[in-house]
Amino acid sequence: MKSVTTRQMKEAGAEIILANTYHLFLQPGPELVARHGGLHKMLHWDRPMLTDSGGFQIFSLGHEGVTYELKGTRQRSAPKTLLKIDEKGAQFRSYVDGKRCYLTPEQSIAVQRGLGADLILALDECAPHRVDRQYTERAMERTHRWAVRSFQAFAENNDGRQALYGVIQGGVYEDLRKCSSNFMAEREFFGQAIGGSLGGSKEEMHEVVAMISQYVHQGRPTHLLGIGGISDIWNGVAQGIDTFDCVHPSRLARHGGALVLPETAEGKEHVNIKNARFAEDMQPIDTDCSCYCCQNFSRAYVHYLFKAQEMLGGQLLTIHNVAFMMRLAQEIRNSIKDGNFAKKIYLKSRL
Amino acid sequence: MKSVTTRQMKEAGAEIILANTYHLFLQPGPELVARHGGLHKMLHWDRPMLTDSGGFQIFSLGHEGVTYELKGTRQRSAPKTLLKIDEKGAQFRSYVDGKRCYLTPEQSIAVQRGLGADLILALDECAPHRVDRQYTERAMERTHRWAVRSFQAFAENNDGRQALYGVIQGGVYEDLRKCSSNFMAEREFFGQAIGGSLGGSKEEMHEVVAMISQYVHQGRPTHLLGIGGISDIWNGVAQGIDTFDCVHPSRLARHGGALVLPETAEGKEHVNIKNARFAEDMQPIDTDCSCYCCQNFSRAYVHYLFKAQEMLGGQLLTIHNVAFMMRLAQEIRNSIKDGNFAKKIYLKSRL
Repeated sequence: MKSVTTRQMKEAGAEIILANTYHLFLQPGPELVARHGGLHKMLHWDRPMLTDSGGFQIFSLGHEGVTYELKGTRQRSAPKTLLKIDEKGAQFRSYVDGKRCYLTPEQSIAVQRGLGADLILALDECAPHRVDRQYTERAMERTHRWAVRSFQAFAENNDGRQALYGVIQGGVYEDLRKCSSNFMAEREFFGQAIGGSLGGSKEEMHEVVAMISQYVHQGRPTHLLGIGGISDIWNGVAQGIDTFDCVHPSRLARHGGALVLPETAEGKEHVNIKNARFAEDMQPIDTDCSCYCCQNFSRAYVHYLFKAQEMLGGQLLTIHNVAFMMRLAQEIRNSIKDGNFAKKIYLKSRL
Repeated sequence: MKSVTTRQMKEAGAEIILANTYHLFLQPGPELVARHGGLHKMLHWDRPMLTDSGGFQIFSLGHEGVTYELKGTRQRSAPKTLLKIDEKGAQFRSYVDGKRCYLTPEQSIAVQRGLGADLILALDECAPHRVDRQYTERAMERTHRWAVRSFQAFAENNDGRQALYGVIQGGVYEDLRKCSSNFMAEREFFGQAIGGSLGGSKEEMHEVVAMISQYVHQGRPTHLLGIGGISDIWNGVAQGIDTFDCVHPSRLARHGGALVLPETAEGKEHVNIKNARFAEDMQPIDTDCSCYCCQNFSRAYVHYLFKAQEMLGGQLLTIHNVAFMMRLAQEIRNSIKDGNFAKKIYLKSRL
């Protein structure tokens, strides 16, 4: 988590964090993390943790901004770092020191073992959005072969302290997603993560998630990779998704975006605290929020911090946005328990 | 305090903070702070607070980097913002919006009243280091006239919740410092702050502080403005200085400097955590330190945060550096109580 301490995350109510295997692989390296006794100790985080396989960043950085492609938004230019994908694994250039690196399914498991997260992911080949069906199918098939190798590497040294998720690929193609879901369901993965392209718009994403959800193993936890918009979470949960991860709440915070109820944001999911209308606003970001930011500081003060380019502004909004997401998740869980989930479609409900 | 919350400052042991009247005058403005009920409430700080008069920044930014001159180090280039000094006050250009601003002694008191700090300062004219005796004397005399006006403005609406310090000027000239000290001592200021040039080197600074200390009112608290080096504090206390302020510990932290005992830093007052020798160092910054950073994180982790340009690194080191300074102050107080202060000359003692 950028700009906040793990203690602040805990105070904001976070129950699990995700760490990026790709970034930690390059810097400071899994050996150093292992010497700390794992990421939990290095970061001083005593709650659950998930690591991704590293694959997503290798492919997204390699394909010049595929992150944006995957979400159907426009491409941005970035240096190509992916050098080669072959059956063995992926070769890429380190953005830290320019060295050539190689990540195989077996290495991804070994690295994630060194990091020591509770939940770990099998290496997948993440195909971009703007590729044809054939490319998507081949990437899916390689993902399946890599899943088998990942599982084997995992099983060989499994001490019971980590649990492995398989990653479902197949883009927007129903037969491929069905095939990939079945492939993962037939193996003894602890859970399943949905990766790859979910279409070119939010509407399509909701449809694709609904489509995939029919095929996943119903007895296992299902994670939706890289998705964290508020309406996306409501829709995902409605389709049976259990967990989500996304940089959105914290990245948004560092740019002045505060997650608020839709009535405050005129139907949007956030307000920009840098907006002049907050310059003299004595209210907290969210009067119903119990986070450190909302309990102690005004919108006018946070507005001022951003105007003065004080990094404390991003820190306070990160705390708020994380607390907001945790409250959202709690509200969703409560509404499921109470049998009110269907009534609580976002934009019509008060959190 | 940049990059940390007031709660983190409190946890690090800070008992008083200084807020800059100049910066707050320009942004967000004293009216907005007053609408919060004062700085204590806006910043959520329930301990003592001091505000400076705003004069130092007007003159230091105005004279193109006089901050550096005052400390005897080289000049840096910066746009001139000081437009005019006359008997009434100082005219300068806002770095926020380019507007012309005017600060008089009366306005400085009014602004500081709006900010609501417990301890406030009279506006002084801070003469740079590289000016002649005549310039220094004239600035001192104006400082005295402004002190009278400041005191009068303060007394007119004194509700007993704030206490006013006079500022002693006079550069490195003993007769001027004596004159200025006497001038302040003869008026009913709560305390006295030492401002202006203290010479061109650390050695000279220690001599000048010792020289001034003979003349200050012995029954009042004495503050040394803008000084915060560790050896400078030991020396200042030896000369009877009670309080200090400086951006050094927090600015140093944001650049990777960790305050440590001299045996760790090979006789220096800090180490640079970005140095390669810390890349695999599993120890905390300071094994004797009880701060959040030292209790939970390794040097290798903080090193990595700086290498990866994560702003959390600056946050953690700021917490440590503030805790270190608080421990230093506690050690100094203890040694005075125990009668061991003289033995504890810094670089020879273990904190």
